[in-house]
Amino acid sequence: MTGALDGIRVLDFTRVFAGPAATQLLGDLGADVIKVEEPGRGDEGRVLGSTKEMLKKYGGMSPSFVAFNRNKRSIALDLGNPAGRRTAFELAAKSDVVVHNFRLGAMERWGLGYEAIKAANPRVIYCEFFAYGKQGPLAHLGANDLALQGHGGLMSMTGEPDRPPVRVGTAAIDLHGGLAMVCAILAALFHRERTGEGQAVEASLLRSSAHLMSYFYTEYWLDGTIRKPMGTANHLSVPNQAFPTADGSVIIIAPSDEMWHRCATALDAERLARPEYKTIFDRQHRREEVIAAISSVTRRLTRQEVFDRLAPVKVNVAKVNSVGEAADDEQLAAIGGVVEFSFDGQKVKSVAAPFKLEGTPTKVESAPPMLGADTETILLELGIGRDEIAARREQGAFGKAKLPAGGNR
Amino acid sequence: MTGALDGIRVLDFTRVFAGPAATQLLGDLGADVIKVEEPGRGDEGRVLGSTKEMLKKYGGMSPSFVAFNRNKRSIALDLGNPAGRRTAFELAAKSDVVVHNFRLGAMERWGLGYEAIKAANPRVIYCEFFAYGKQGPLAHLGANDLALQGHGGLMSMTGEPDRPPVRVGTAAIDLHGGLAMVCAILAALFHRERTGEGQAVEASLLRSSAHLMSYFYTEYWLDGTIRKPMGTANHLSVPNQAFPTADGSVIIIAPSDEMWHRCATALDAERLARPEYKTIFDRQHRREEVIAAISSVTRRLTRQEVFDRLAPVKVNVAKVNSVGEAADDEQLAAIGGVVEFSFDGQKVKSVAAPFKLEGTPTKVESAPPMLGADTETILLELGIGRDEIAARREQGAFGKAKLPAGGNR
Repeated sequence: MTGALDGIRVLDFTRVFAGPAATQLLGDLGADVIKVEEPGRGDEGRVLGSTKEMLKKYGGMSPSFVAFNRNKRSIALDLGNPAGRRTAFELAAKSDVVVHNFRLGAMERWGLGYEAIKAANPRVIYCEFFAYGKQGPLAHLGANDLALQGHGGLMSMTGEPDRPPVRVGTAAIDLHGGLAMVCAILAALFHRERTGEGQAVEASLLRSSAHLMSYFYTEYWLDGTIRKPMGTANHLSVPNQAFPTADGSVIIIAPSDEMWHRCATALDAERLARPEYKTIFDRQHRREEVIAAISSVTRRLTRQEVFDRLAPVKVNVAKVNSVGEAADDEQLAAIGGVVEFSFDGQKVKSVAAPFKLEGTPTKVESAPPMLGADTETILLELGIGRDEIAARREQGAFGKAKLPAGGNR
Repeated sequence: MTGALDGIRVLDFTRVFAGPAATQLLGDLGADVIKVEEPGRGDEGRVLGSTKEMLKKYGGMSPSFVAFNRNKRSIALDLGNPAGRRTAFELAAKSDVVVHNFRLGAMERWGLGYEAIKAANPRVIYCEFFAYGKQGPLAHLGANDLALQGHGGLMSMTGEPDRPPVRVGTAAIDLHGGLAMVCAILAALFHRERTGEGQAVEASLLRSSAHLMSYFYTEYWLDGTIRKPMGTANHLSVPNQAFPTADGSVIIIAPSDEMWHRCATALDAERLARPEYKTIFDRQHRREEVIAAISSVTRRLTRQEVFDRLAPVKVNVAKVNSVGEAADDEQLAAIGGVVEFSFDGQKVKSVAAPFKLEGTPTKVESAPPMLGADTETILLELGIGRDEIAARREQGAFGKAKLPAGGNR
C-alpha cells in the first residue's frame, strides 16, 4: 500500500523539537523529507541532553534526535555561504513543502523567504514556525517550550496547592505545535490539490500554548475565573485524582453517582458506600473527608489490586506508571504504537505516529540520518552533476568538513 | 477568500474535549460540521464544570463547550431509536467525513460502523477516537485525559522532586489527540482527492500520550534512563527554570556560556558573573549554588524588572503568568490568536486555531449552537420533506423533547 503523502517532497530547515517532530510525521505518511543541516554541527537536537556514552553508542545522536528524525535524509548546507544558499534555493524550487523555524527575518536575509521561493515555485507550501509569531511586541523575543509554559499560564495551574508552580514534565507545547504544523501543511496540500494554489502557513509556540489553554482562557473571558493548581485533583468531581497505594499511585475517576457506588462497593463498602457520600454534591461538599477515606483504603492495597477491583466494575482507573513502565506496557505495542528501525546493526525502538490510517498506513523506512549522509545523492537527484557538486564543495557550499562518502542506510 | 475545507461535510458524533476540539478546527477551515447530539441532554461537555450562574448566562453552555464548539450546527438524534438511527445513517451516507468517540462497538451496534457506512458511501473518511485503541488488553477500559497522564508516565515526571506527582493543569493529552485526529482526517482527504479512495482512520488517548512522551520512551529504550520530576528545572542546563521574584515567578533560560554571561552581567555582575560559574559544566556541577545565587538576585526585583533586563540582551526570559494575564496579554491578540463571536447579543472571546493559513484563512462564522437548533434545516437540506420529518418526529427520531423551532444564529 502507498502512503498518503507519497511523491511529496519536503525541504526541512527545522531544528530541535517542534519542527523535526512535524516533518517526521510527514515522512511517516510517505513524504520524502530532506533535512537541511549546518555542516559540522547539524541540528542542535543531535546532542541535546545526551551523555558522552550515549553519543558514542548511537552515532552521535541524542535520544530526542532519535525520537524525532526517522524517515529523513540529511543534506549539509552552509547557508552562510553563497553556493550553499544557491543550492538550498534550487532544492526549495523543486519541493512541494518548505518548513523552517529560524528567527524572524533569517530566511529572507538568505534569499529563502516565501516571496523569493514562491516566484520560482508558485505551488509551494511554505510553513514557518515561530516562538511568539510574526507581529506584536514579543515577535523578536526568543523562547522555548518552558518559556511558553510560563507565559501561557499552564505553569500557574500545575503543581500542588499553595506550593510553587512546576513545569509539565514533557515539551507538550512544542509537540502540540508540531502537530499544528502538520495540520496546516496538510490543509494547504489539500487546497492545492483542489485548486493548484500554494500558500504560506504558520504555527508558533504561542498559538500552540493558547490552544492547549483555550478553555481556561474562555472561562476567564466569560466570568473572570482564574484556576489554580490542585495537585492531581480536579474541580469537576470527587474522586477525580491520584490516590496513594502500597507501591505507588493510582488514578480513580468516578464522577457519576452510579459509578461512585460501584467504586465504593468494590473498594470497601463499609468505609465508602455511605449515605453521606452518595451524591456528587455530597462528595464535593465533603471533598477532604472523601479523599481521606478513599486514601485510607487504597494505602493498604497495591496499584494492581486497586486496578483489579475497579476495572471489572467499569470505574475509570489507571496506574501512575513510571516512564519505563509506560513505555513497556503491552497495550502500546498491541495497537502498533511502537515502531522499530535498525541503526548500525542495533534494533532501536521508537513511538509511532499519534494516528493510524487504515488505507494508507504510516511506515518507518529509515533510521535517523547521520549529518550530511545524503548530500551527494540528493544533489544528483536534483540534476546537479558531479563536477558541479565538486565545484560547489570547493566554494564551501557544504562546509569546510569533508563531505561523507555515502549514506548510513 | 475561501476556506481550505469549503464544501466538505463533517458528521460529528463526538462529545466532550478531543473530538469537539478536532471538529471545531475542521469548521474553522471551512467545513460544514454537523454535530449529532442526544436529544434533551446533548454533548456532556455542554454542562461539564459549569456553575448554575454560568449555565443561565450562556444559554446552558459551559466554558469548555463554548471553547470547542463554534462553527458547528447541531442536530438532535436519538440513536436508541430506529428512525433516529436511520436519519443518522442517511446523513453519514452524504458526508465526506464521519467522526465519533463512542466506546468500541457502539457504532456497529447502531448500524453506523465503518463497513456499513462505506457500503453506502465508499469515499467516506471514517475517523474513530478511542481511549486505549481497538486491540489489546485495555481496549475496553474507559479513560480520560487524567487517566492517560497517569498511565503514560507524564504524571510521574511532573511535580517537585521528592514530593507526590501532580497533573498537568490542562487536558493536554485530549487536545493533542484532537490535533492528531485533524492530521489523520486531512491526510486521508488529501489521499482521497488524489485517488478517489476513502478510508478509516483512528487516534486515541494512548497514542496521543505516547507521542507527547516519545523522546522519554526512546531514551528509556536506548539506555534505561527513567526521568523524575524536577519542579520547574531541567536536566539539560543551568539556569533553565523558574525563579522567584518580588511579585511572582519568572523563567530564565541561558544554556550557552555566552548567553549566561549576558544574563549574569545584566542581573548582577558581582554576584553572578563569576569565574566559577563560567561554563555549562561549572553551572551543572554547582547547580544548587548557581540557582540560589540567581534567586537571591531575582527576589529583589519584580517579574517585569527581570524581563526588562534580560529581554534586551537576548536571554530567553518569560513571566509566569496567571491564566488571566496570559489570556489578556496583548501578544496573543496581535497575532490574531483571539477570535470573537456573538451569542445572544453578547460578544464572546475565544482562542483561534493553533495555525494560520495565509491563502485560505480560518474563520469564525457562528457561535456554538443550542442543542438541536439546526435539526430541521439540516434534514430539509438532506432532501427529507416536512411530512417525513413530522413522521420521524412522531416515531421518536429526535427524542421526546419538542424540536426547537429555529436556529440560534
